[in-house]
Amino acid sequence: MRELLEGLPKNWGRWGENDEVGALNFLTAAEVLRGVACVRKGKTFTLQVQMGHPKGDPVWPGRHGAQRFNIMDKGDFLCGAGPEFPGNHEFADDVMFLYLQGSTQYDALGHVWYDDQIYNGYDARTTARSLKKASVLPIAERGVVGRGVLIDMARHRGKAVLDKGETFNHFDLMAAAEAQGCKIEKHDILLIRTGLIGSFYERDKNEFYKDFTEPGLTFSRELVTWFHEMEIANLVTDTIANEVTADPETGVVVPLHCALMRNLGVVFTEIVALDALAEDCAADGQWNFLYTAAPLKVVGGSGAPVNPVVLK
Amino acid sequence: MRELLEGLPKNWGRWGENDEVGALNFLTAAEVLRGVACVRKGKTFTLQVQMGHPKGDPVWPGRHGAQRFNIMDKGDFLCGAGPEFPGNHEFADDVMFLYLQGSTQYDALGHVWYDDQIYNGYDARTTARSLKKASVLPIAERGVVGRGVLIDMARHRGKAVLDKGETFNHFDLMAAAEAQGCKIEKHDILLIRTGLIGSFYERDKNEFYKDFTEPGLTFSRELVTWFHEMEIANLVTDTIANEVTADPETGVVVPLHCALMRNLGVVFTEIVALDALAEDCAADGQWNFLYTAAPLKVVGGSGAPVNPVVLK
Amino acid sequence: MRELLEGLPKNWGRWGENDEVGALNFLTAAEVLRGVACVRKGKTFTLQVQMGHPKGDPVWPGRHGAQRFNIMDKGDFLCGAGPEFPGNHEFADDVMFLYLQGSTQYDALGHVWYDDQIYNGYDARTTARSLKKASVLPIAERGVVGRGVLIDMARHRGKAVLDKGETFNHFDLMAAAEAQGCKIEKHDILLIRTGLIGSFYERDKNEFYKDFTEPGLTFSRELVTWFHEMEIANLVTDTIANEVTADPETGVVVPLHCALMRNLGVVFTEIVALDALAEDCAADGQWNFLYTAAPLKVVGGSGAPVNPVVLK
Amino acid sequence: MRELLEGLPKNWGRWGENDEVGALNFLTAAEVLRGVACVRKGKTFTLQVQMGHPKGDPVWPGRHGAQRFNIMDKGDFLCGAGPEFPGNHEFADDVMFLYLQGSTQYDALGHVWYDDQIYNGYDARTTARSLKKASVLPIAERGVVGRGVLIDMARHRGKAVLDKGETFNHFDLMAAAEAQGCKIEKHDILLIRTGLIGSFYERDKNEFYKDFTEPGLTFSRELVTWFHEMEIANLVTDTIANEVTADPETGVVVPLHCALMRNLGVVFTEIVALDALAEDCAADGQWNFLYTAAPLKVVGGSGAPVNPVVLK
Repeated sequence: MRELLEGLPKNWGRWGENDEVGALNFLTAAEVLRGVACVRKGKTFTLQVQMGHPKGDPVWPGRHGAQRFNIMDKGDFLCGAGPEFPGNHEFADDVMFLYLQGSTQYDALGHVWYDDQIYNGYDARTTARSLKKASVLPIAERGVVGRGVLIDMARHRGKAVLDKGETFNHFDLMAAAEAQGCKIEKHDILLIRTGLIGSFYERDKNEFYKDFTEPGLTFSRELVTWFHEMEIANLVTDTIANEVTADPETGVVVPLHCALMRNLGVVFTEIVALDALAEDCAADGQWNFLYTAAPLKVVGGSGAPVNPVVLK
Repeated sequence: MRELLEGLPKNWGRWGENDEVGALNFLTAAEVLRGVACVRKGKTFTLQVQMGHPKGDPVWPGRHGAQRFNIMDKGDFLCGAGPEFPGNHEFADDVMFLYLQGSTQYDALGHVWYDDQIYNGYDARTTARSLKKASVLPIAERGVVGRGVLIDMARHRGKAVLDKGETFNHFDLMAAAEAQGCKIEKHDILLIRTGLIGSFYERDKNEFYKDFTEPGLTFSRELVTWFHEMEIANLVTDTIANEVTADPETGVVVPLHCALMRNLGVVFTEIVALDALAEDCAADGQWNFLYTAAPLKVVGGSGAPVNPVVLK
Repeated sequence: MRELLEGLPKNWGRWGENDEVGALNFLTAAEVLRGVACVRKGKTFTLQVQMGHPKGDPVWPGRHGAQRFNIMDKGDFLCGAGPEFPGNHEFADDVMFLYLQGSTQYDALGHVWYDDQIYNGYDARTTARSLKKASVLPIAERGVVGRGVLIDMARHRGKAVLDKGETFNHFDLMAAAEAQGCKIEKHDILLIRTGLIGSFYERDKNEFYKDFTEPGLTFSRELVTWFHEMEIANLVTDTIANEVTADPETGVVVPLHCALMRNLGVVFTEIVALDALAEDCAADGQWNFLYTAAPLKVVGGSGAPVNPVVLK
Repeated sequence: MRELLEGLPKNWGRWGENDEVGALNFLTAAEVLRGVACVRKGKTFTLQVQMGHPKGDPVWPGRHGAQRFNIMDKGDFLCGAGPEFPGNHEFADDVMFLYLQGSTQYDALGHVWYDDQIYNGYDARTTARSLKKASVLPIAERGVVGRGVLIDMARHRGKAVLDKGETFNHFDLMAAAEAQGCKIEKHDILLIRTGLIGSFYERDKNEFYKDFTEPGLTFSRELVTWFHEMEIANLVTDTIANEVTADPETGVVVPLHCALMRNLGVVFTEIVALDALAEDCAADGQWNFLYTAAPLKVVGGSGAPVNPVVLK
């Protein structure tokens, strides 16, 4: 990885040696207000996929979807097994076992690294047992609010869903934006739709996971530089890894996690449901909006689930 | 409970026989815009408590705080136990076991009931194994966006935290609002601060849980009517149950869950961290704001964790 | 089910109205000594399948195999994340999430029922939240010790593994015993090998679970009567359900759970690894042995994992 | 630790460079038969503590007792939420989240170490994510069967339970044996009762865990040599750590885990319920027996729960 990314920009130290939220620092109060200015009609959208969908939940191979179980409900009260309180109210209660990255989720900036250092130069050994540095907690404490722009790559290419391993780059994003009649601006929260996550529920699961390769952004030095210059705060896509799984040229796996997340501090949001939002944007021609999101405040988490809210 | 609530208003059927989000229906696009109009400076706040705080997480007795465990980190790679990918990136991953109501959380409208029917008249037996009706999912799909107003009862009474079992009613809320120089308006998302959750981290845990009684709103027919007439969409407090644990007069436990949530469809958000927001509101004198929140989209959940985002 | 089992024997009340261990009552001290008398060479065998086998764990469709995670190991100490004790010892620690019936396991007598009553006539409503009657706990407290006899139906039929849906009955068992040169005696712990569980690790998982039907014992009035008269204490097989999944004639699912477990109190042990034991018995011609087993003492459990130990 | 244990015996390599079960190798077929010879009356005892006891489960501080939840029972069927099968049987099902060392349990030989090597010289880095060497699996596959002898130190000292931090050594064990009229023999499975675990259920939990120090065996060079010469296969006690928590002289924590388990390969069984067995031994004067135990076959486990079965 080091050779591949040699000479590319880094934002380590840019926001102080104790920084843990990286490019979210671009989201100043002024950027919040720039996002707020996009709200016109009072429409809202939520972007998480369901946890426990009857057709299964899309996850990175090796992880599993969340498992939820009722531990109290009407059945227990019918059997006389519920607690009795004055007034005799009854209630339902439940527990869940989950992979913290097994649904729509924010990656901590310390989630992926190479060469013994995570974002901002922290020693990778700080990840042991619980992320002591650059965990998802500071992202969750800060929240992510700004102007979002959606680029619908699938629609731009006239497809319901991009193919396995199909790639695109920043020029493609800009061309798609132009075709949509909008512009990716500096400090935007960049949402990209490939159609992948929406297609999961319609596809055979064996086919979906076979030779696992997603469509997505592909690494180039120019693309990294573009992200750096555009000062993109947050990359949000409807894929599991936010980039084509392996670089088609070198075979290197997830180079953008390294170049963008670890080196530039760009925050990643994955497995996002974008179909309904894209439908609406295509209908009214407004592809930008106020984006608000805050993952769960999981102490030491390498990531955490989130249900972003978009206002137009 | 039936006798206590006899003759009080219900919103069942008001939004159709298939409604599952209750008073959130008041939050129309116009209300979203009313909330947006409160944003002036671009300040943001996140309202969830931490999950896995070193001092423990505040929960209703019988539940437990979330347990999170790293299942991959730098230690594993140092030991040669991590997977090797082309490019040799490394990563951290983790799992969590949680009570869905064991942190800041939205209650499903079907979470609490009496007399065999949950909100909107659905049969309480629909709660078995998984809430088929009025689960947290429709709330999570819809999201909660509108104008929020914070009433700081602790500050109003000159206390850091209200006492165990200390009560207040809608007149107290209105008096506090007036003292704050603001007003509770129709269709507001109502946030109430007692100081309780913030105090949890400073208090001895045995003392905190002993004879468990929280401060909070107390039941009266007038108070229920006031909520009904004000068409409050969402009640958000820094306590575990959003109301005084047991009604001081009758001893009935959580009557407001029944009167407001089950009967009126007012959505409850509990265990919310309000101290930083309150501090800011006291400093700048602006007690209203854009409130956005969407709990996790847990299929069939009786509740789900959430990290609300407030914009001022 | 009631019609199917009409007129067949029941052992309810036979060991008192508070009995929770059923046919294990046949395993008196004399039977323990009868088992001990089978030990000749000091050979031992353990009969549990592995939990977390690299090829997956065989489970009833809808359940999942156990998930285990290290939460402390050398990696953490290398990273300085382990606790430091005087003397500086280091250690590994782990957690597991499991279905209690997701491995080799004893069923509680209250695990399966029909007509609102579980074994011994207890109200089925006592199963709510936690089995208050006939849970796996009394079985675990008592333990199961006696003379075991292994009938190798697969070997008897000259097959590595019986076919999906292939059935056999008590006459087949007796014929196989005779061919093996042994005899099923009254009060025996009856082990039956079909080859199924051993074959799981070699088979394609989609093929294994497709149209899920196991080979096994098949219901008949005579077979139930035979179990009753033989006073079999414990039925132990290398299948997931201990009987052919659905009765070939009536289509009724798991009638033997109802006829043997619920009505007669015969204790069921499922998903047992019998291949190595069978190999040894075939080699030395000794098909009986001392069988000892005690599932985990799970309070209120509907079942619990077990690793039985056999002595020859 | 190295200095403390300098010059003391090790069994590394004694049973081959691939050995993972250590002193269990002493338990040959002849030893099995020696154990069997102790069975006289056909009495049986099970030695696990309950998992999910209403008064809580005794665990090492920082671990938690198992949490079990019904996920199906009569309540669900009453609500029409259970699956319908031909024949209409009903059933209960449950899941559990546990610390693998949070109940009566066998430690893997690789559970505790110092100086970068675990038992038999394996690199401690093999513990990462899952024990690749000397996990609990080989112990579970082999099982533990032999002659057990119970030494009741509490009874010997005329106490219901030994005091916090109260120690004893091999001379005390032999004196107690003599008083009991029995003898600790070579290759025995050594069970020691302090009364601690039984007392847990009667004691205030804050008092039990305060300044956590258990009674137990205390380190000395002579004691280690005695274990070595006696070729004790398995040490089984009714305490959480099998030894006094910290050595009273040096303050070193768990030196016997290092000297006996890591260096000699003596297998440890902890949190064992010995009161009923002790009661019976005191009554009939027979302190030896056939001991059989096999922990769950947890792949890669640092330990696993067990319910040992004793025959007299």
